[in-house]
Amino acid sequence: MKTASYAAQAAESLLAPMTIERREPHANDVSIDILYCGVCHSDLHTARNDWGWTVYPAVPGHEIVGRVSAVGSEVAKYNIGDLVAVGCMVDSCQHCKPCHAGEEQYCGHRVDTYNTPDGSAMGHTMGGYSNHVVVREEFVLSVPENLDTARVAPLVCAGITTYSPLRTWNVGPGSQVAVIGLGGLGHMAVKLAAAMGAHVTAITRSASKADEAKALGADAVLISTDTAAMKHAADRFELIIDTVPVKHDINPYMPLLELDGTLVIVGQVGLMQELHTAPMILGRRRVAGSLIGGVAETQEMLDFCGKTGVLPEVEMIRMDQINEAYERLEKSDVRYRFVIDMSSMPAFEG
Amino acid sequence: MKTASYAAQAAESLLAPMTIERREPHANDVSIDILYCGVCHSDLHTARNDWGWTVYPAVPGHEIVGRVSAVGSEVAKYNIGDLVAVGCMVDSCQHCKPCHAGEEQYCGHRVDTYNTPDGSAMGHTMGGYSNHVVVREEFVLSVPENLDTARVAPLVCAGITTYSPLRTWNVGPGSQVAVIGLGGLGHMAVKLAAAMGAHVTAITRSASKADEAKALGADAVLISTDTAAMKHAADRFELIIDTVPVKHDINPYMPLLELDGTLVIVGQVGLMQELHTAPMILGRRRVAGSLIGGVAETQEMLDFCGKTGVLPEVEMIRMDQINEAYERLEKSDVRYRFVIDMSSMPAFEG
Repeated sequence: MKTASYAAQAAESLLAPMTIERREPHANDVSIDILYCGVCHSDLHTARNDWGWTVYPAVPGHEIVGRVSAVGSEVAKYNIGDLVAVGCMVDSCQHCKPCHAGEEQYCGHRVDTYNTPDGSAMGHTMGGYSNHVVVREEFVLSVPENLDTARVAPLVCAGITTYSPLRTWNVGPGSQVAVIGLGGLGHMAVKLAAAMGAHVTAITRSASKADEAKALGADAVLISTDTAAMKHAADRFELIIDTVPVKHDINPYMPLLELDGTLVIVGQVGLMQELHTAPMILGRRRVAGSLIGGVAETQEMLDFCGKTGVLPEVEMIRMDQINEAYERLEKSDVRYRFVIDMSSMPAFEG
Repeated sequence: MKTASYAAQAAESLLAPMTIERREPHANDVSIDILYCGVCHSDLHTARNDWGWTVYPAVPGHEIVGRVSAVGSEVAKYNIGDLVAVGCMVDSCQHCKPCHAGEEQYCGHRVDTYNTPDGSAMGHTMGGYSNHVVVREEFVLSVPENLDTARVAPLVCAGITTYSPLRTWNVGPGSQVAVIGLGGLGHMAVKLAAAMGAHVTAITRSASKADEAKALGADAVLISTDTAAMKHAADRFELIIDTVPVKHDINPYMPLLELDGTLVIVGQVGLMQELHTAPMILGRRRVAGSLIGGVAETQEMLDFCGKTGVLPEVEMIRMDQINEAYERLEKSDVRYRFVIDMSSMPAFEG
C-alpha cells in the first residue's frame, strides 16, 4: 500500500513529500490511519545523520496516534476505529530475557519505528510523518478516549522516557525528585513525577524559568548557578532525571543526591564530561541511563495519564511546517513539543 | 598516655619514630594493644598529602588488630584480653539518617581513624602504626578467634570495602560477578564473592595473571585486551567491582553488564575518563561508588570470614620497613597486602 509521507533524502536536504510503500498487513498486523505525530529531537538527529547511522530516505516520527483502519485475522486486541498509538519501536525478538521481562526496548533485535533495516520493500522502517502505518499488534498501544487526542502523541516517547525511570526507581508519594532541563522530556518528567505524588524540584540555570516550572507542577525550583542554594540542597533527592540533550557537566548535581540516590540520564547520547568519583563513593550515589520503556509499561503510562489527565504541552503544526519546526527545535524554541496534525498532509498520495 | 608510633612530618619526609599521646580513656572507650596493622594505599596517599588534606604529623594505619588492654566503666561488649579490630573510622554523630541506618561511613561527621581533627592533644586522630590506641566502644569490632590473627587486619578496610558492595547489590549463589584489578582490594573481592557462591570473573589486562586469579578463587579470567572475548562477555555481569586505584577508562567494561547491572568504583578517587552514555542508556546500566561499610556490616563481614575462613594474602613486615613497603606499594609490588607486625616497633616509648 502506498502512502504519503515526508522524508529526508540526505543529511543536508530538507524534509519533502515522498510516496512510500507500507507492507501488506500480516495476520497479526494492525493498519492505522495516523491522526497526529509528535516531533522528537531524535527525528532531527536522524534526518541530519547526527549519529552517523541514518539510512535514506528517512521518514522520522515515533510519537504516533491514530485510528485503526484494518486488522489482520489473528489480531485480538484491536478493532477498526480504535484509538491507538505507536511509540519508538515496532518489533523485537519476543523470546530473549529482556523481551520475556517486558523490556522489549533492551532487546538486541529491537526494530525501531524508523531507520531500522526490516527487509521490506523500502529496506528499512519508515516513521510516522505519514498518513498510514502498519504495525504488529504487540507494539500497538491503546489510547484512553477521554484524553485530548491532539496532545497524546508525545506521551509514547517523551512521556514513557521519563515515566519509566520514575517507576524503575520507585517514585511515589513523598519521594524527592529533581528534573534537569525543561524541554520536551523535562516538562513531562515534572508533570508525571508530580502526578505520582512526588515532591518535584526543577533544576535550571535561569531564574526566568521558575514560573513556567511551577506552572507545569514543580513544587520547587533550584537555580544551578546559585551556589548557596545548591549547597543547601545537598543529600536531598532520591532521583534526578537529567533530560539535557547535549554534553554537559553533571558533577555539580551529584552531591544533591541522597545516600543511594541515582542520577538517570535520558537526554544526552555521547561522551559525558569527566565525572568525579568522590561524590559517588562518599554517598553510594549512582549514575544510570534509561531507554524509553517496555510495551506493557508504556500502556500502563497511557492508562495512568488517562486517569490523572497528564498531557504534554504541545504546539500544533502542519506537515509542511516541519523544516521550520526543526530549526526552532534546534534553538529550544518550542513549548514544549511540536505535534504534526496529519490532516494537513498535502495531497500527493500515489 | 604516651605511645610509640611511626609518623610522617611532611609530604616529602619518610615515616619515622614519634612518641604520640593517646587520650585518657572515657567511660565508653576501649584501650587496645595493637598486634598488627595493615598497610592501605590510603596510608601512602595521606602520608604524602596526595589528596591535599593531610595534617601533620600524620600517623597512618586503619587496619588495626589487637587485644583489649583496658575498658571504660560503661563498656559492655568487650573485656580485657578480647581480640578486636578497628577499621577506617573511630566515631560518627550517631544520630543522623546514615548513622541510624547503620551506615556510619556516610555520616557527615564521621571521624576517620587518622587525619581527622578531633580536639585531642594531638589535634587530629592518629592511626594504627602505633603500639596502643583508644577507641569508642561502638567502633571496636570483635575478631573471631579461629582466624589466623596475623592475616585479619586487612579485612577491616580492603575486606569491608569489597564485601559491602557485594551485599548492597545482593550477590549470592549463582550471581555473575566480575572484579577489575587484582591488588589489595581486588584479591579480597575475588575471595569474598567466591565465598558467597557467586561465579567470579577476574578482568585483567595481562594473561600472565590468569593463574594467580584462579588460585585466589576466580572461576574465570577475562583478558580486557582480547576484543573477541570482551565481545563474547557482553551482558554477562550483574556486578563489576572496579578496584583500579588510578584514573582509567571504564567504557570498555560497561557493555559487559547485564540489564540493570552496576559497575561500582571502590578504588579510584578523582576524575574518571569521559564516560559514554550509550551503554548506560541501552541497558539501564549503572555506575556507582561505595565507601567501606558500616560498623554492623563490618562485624558481619568478620563473622562471615570466621565461618568461611576467607583471609587476605599478606606479606608481613617490620615497622622499620614501612618506607620500603610504600615504595613497593607504589609499584604494585605486593602479594597482596603488607601487614606490620607491631611487635617489631623499636623501643623509644616515652
